[in-house]
Amino acid sequence: MASEIPSGNAVVAQSGGPSAVINQSLVGVIEGLRGQKGVGRILGARHGVRGMVKDEFVDLTDLPQDRLDLVASTPSSALGSTRDKPDPAYCERILTGLKKHSIRSFFYIGGNDSSDTCRIVSEMASASGYEMRAYHVPKTIDCDLMMSDHTPGFASAARYVAMAFLGDNLDNRALPGIKINVVMGRHAGFLTGASALLRQREDDGPHVVCMPEVPFVFAEFAAKVEQVYARLGRCLIAISEGVQDAQGTPIMQLLAPTQERDAHGNLRLSGTGALGDTAAQMLAAKLTPAGGKPPRTRADTLGYAQRYWPDPSPVDSREAREVGRVAARTAFGGPTRGSIAIVRTGGAGSPNPGRPYGAEFKRVELTDVAAKTRHMPAEFLNGMDVTPAFVEWLRPLVGETPRVGWV
Amino acid sequence: MASEIPSGNAVVAQSGGPSAVINQSLVGVIEGLRGQKGVGRILGARHGVRGMVKDEFVDLTDLPQDRLDLVASTPSSALGSTRDKPDPAYCERILTGLKKHSIRSFFYIGGNDSSDTCRIVSEMASASGYEMRAYHVPKTIDCDLMMSDHTPGFASAARYVAMAFLGDNLDNRALPGIKINVVMGRHAGFLTGASALLRQREDDGPHVVCMPEVPFVFAEFAAKVEQVYARLGRCLIAISEGVQDAQGTPIMQLLAPTQERDAHGNLRLSGTGALGDTAAQMLAAKLTPAGGKPPRTRADTLGYAQRYWPDPSPVDSREAREVGRVAARTAFGGPTRGSIAIVRTGGAGSPNPGRPYGAEFKRVELTDVAAKTRHMPAEFLNGMDVTPAFVEWLRPLVGETPRVGWV
Repeated sequence: MASEIPSGNAVVAQSGGPSAVINQSLVGVIEGLRGQKGVGRILGARHGVRGMVKDEFVDLTDLPQDRLDLVASTPSSALGSTRDKPDPAYCERILTGLKKHSIRSFFYIGGNDSSDTCRIVSEMASASGYEMRAYHVPKTIDCDLMMSDHTPGFASAARYVAMAFLGDNLDNRALPGIKINVVMGRHAGFLTGASALLRQREDDGPHVVCMPEVPFVFAEFAAKVEQVYARLGRCLIAISEGVQDAQGTPIMQLLAPTQERDAHGNLRLSGTGALGDTAAQMLAAKLTPAGGKPPRTRADTLGYAQRYWPDPSPVDSREAREVGRVAARTAFGGPTRGSIAIVRTGGAGSPNPGRPYGAEFKRVELTDVAAKTRHMPAEFLNGMDVTPAFVEWLRPLVGETPRVGWV
Repeated sequence: MASEIPSGNAVVAQSGGPSAVINQSLVGVIEGLRGQKGVGRILGARHGVRGMVKDEFVDLTDLPQDRLDLVASTPSSALGSTRDKPDPAYCERILTGLKKHSIRSFFYIGGNDSSDTCRIVSEMASASGYEMRAYHVPKTIDCDLMMSDHTPGFASAARYVAMAFLGDNLDNRALPGIKINVVMGRHAGFLTGASALLRQREDDGPHVVCMPEVPFVFAEFAAKVEQVYARLGRCLIAISEGVQDAQGTPIMQLLAPTQERDAHGNLRLSGTGALGDTAAQMLAAKLTPAGGKPPRTRADTLGYAQRYWPDPSPVDSREAREVGRVAARTAFGGPTRGSIAIVRTGGAGSPNPGRPYGAEFKRVELTDVAAKTRHMPAEFLNGMDVTPAFVEWLRPLVGETPRVGWV
């Protein structure tokens, strides 16, 4: 029980790819910690667990509220982030750092790898008789954490992707051709599916949406593109950076087998236009009529803008803040370890679809989230497209979007 | 004089790369034509001059104001665009189309190539004794038209670029490394320079800004990146897609000599990540210490989002509308052919730098604009960076931008 844990300092840190609202969660944790009994200083570790083993902390205890509000609305990880995935030896060093600074509560904002780090450190502390609290605060633009309807960071990235395809559909109408946009998402297609959110007219793109959950077969892909192109004279394509073949091998790996890997063993998918460019070349070659000119074919890789774009979804901003607060309060009022999940209580995809969108926050076990991946459910997938159910599920999350006129 | 021209219909068309505010100019032309004596129907040609030779028109005369307002605020060319660059035979077919539909005024929204098309058609009409009005309505995100302080479309694209670097600078702080962003701009560096607009702290990026006006020498570039990386442990780079060597050869052409060309003979620079990816590979190879690991190096190509992003600059929206109105009114109240330039009358870079930003619109000769290119002036350039004078010149154009906090 929480009451058994001695007073001490608290630490908060940020991990993995930043998001547009990850600092809302940082500030939420600070706000949730303020006024809790048994909390001394509130420290921030620079660059995630790396700061904890290198003794790089910043004292956040006395930041005034206007400063906190400004930090909260600033995209990307204000404390710095890391791609380090701690092994047991690294976790021992983290624990040593925690003890050295009398830290009795640890909040780690990140994805499923961060949740796992939280779990290991927490278990090691228990085993060594060091009583502490450890909470994972969810963050990932990929929306691929178990137990959650969606994750903080996702809706802002989805907003960016939806706005990009709104604009690019108009661009592609104006100068018709085949256009590929590569979207982030290593294992889950939620973000790529967001490309379809703002379609209005029957012939609006994206016309082809390739997600990791649906095995990518180039011949089928090219056939669908050819069909759309024959009908409309254009074809707008959303393709996830994480598309895989039927054996689960990333297409990027097939195209670029020497592509580098990070410390987690994950293939590097972002920060290069290779997937889009290769797919564009293959499509152009495939769709060139005998003796004719290749169709106008272009590729953009939407890139890091998806996670840093400084125009976040208001719903996402509010929820990311609240997730941080709830994690801090639950750590002191409930079980000493856990993660926080967002549960949809109203609107499409909830038990009360007729009510307006609503969500609540509940504690889940670290082991329910750690090192697991959620995928798009079957009711959101329709081959190389998403279903209306997905669009209805997504709509309340992204905020106001521009209206469009035509002549 | 205008009074000599018989009554007839009017046509408006859009050309070249779309922008976020090109429909403001379309609607501005329609508004400027309404109520003019001697104007019958107001027609829109689909896909620029292509619609004029293929008889593809839409009647815009009676569109209600709320519809016009919605179209105006919609990004990309609502009438469709074209990359066709008419030769004399093509221009003859345009003139035939004008005569067939009793069109006595022609408004072409586009860049310097469109201005040249306007000029040729106008001269052919004169030579054949067909009296008509012909106005070029400026549009280009590259800001590279002569006679203008800036061009409609530029400020919205600059807003996108500035917001992207604001976010990516924070992302690059959080996960340090070398990050390259490729920015549009075939001949002029204005848009690439916009990357520097929102720097605040001494160590904010972009740290290296490569524009077409400054010859690109890889060794010098790599040396500057290395210097920044040694000092900060990171380096954010803005590089124009149009960077050239000292002989004026595009670097893209050196990297990818088989890259396709458009009907204007222009090398295709956009819609591929090739420049960014190649520069990233070369930098990583150059900066890898002997026996050590290469630095984390990533590249994004900002891509078409720069021209379609549906969050335009308010100043740009207003000016693009007004440029269309002024073109229509001037065609009927002044000389029968011309283009419209934006002249800055107040604020930094104007004759009245102490006054708030202001601009006025003046008619210029088609031959002053046609097929000419404006470059960044020397006072805006500082090697691989822009000057404070450039930043002050740009600031009033882009609208409100987010405030940023840090801990």
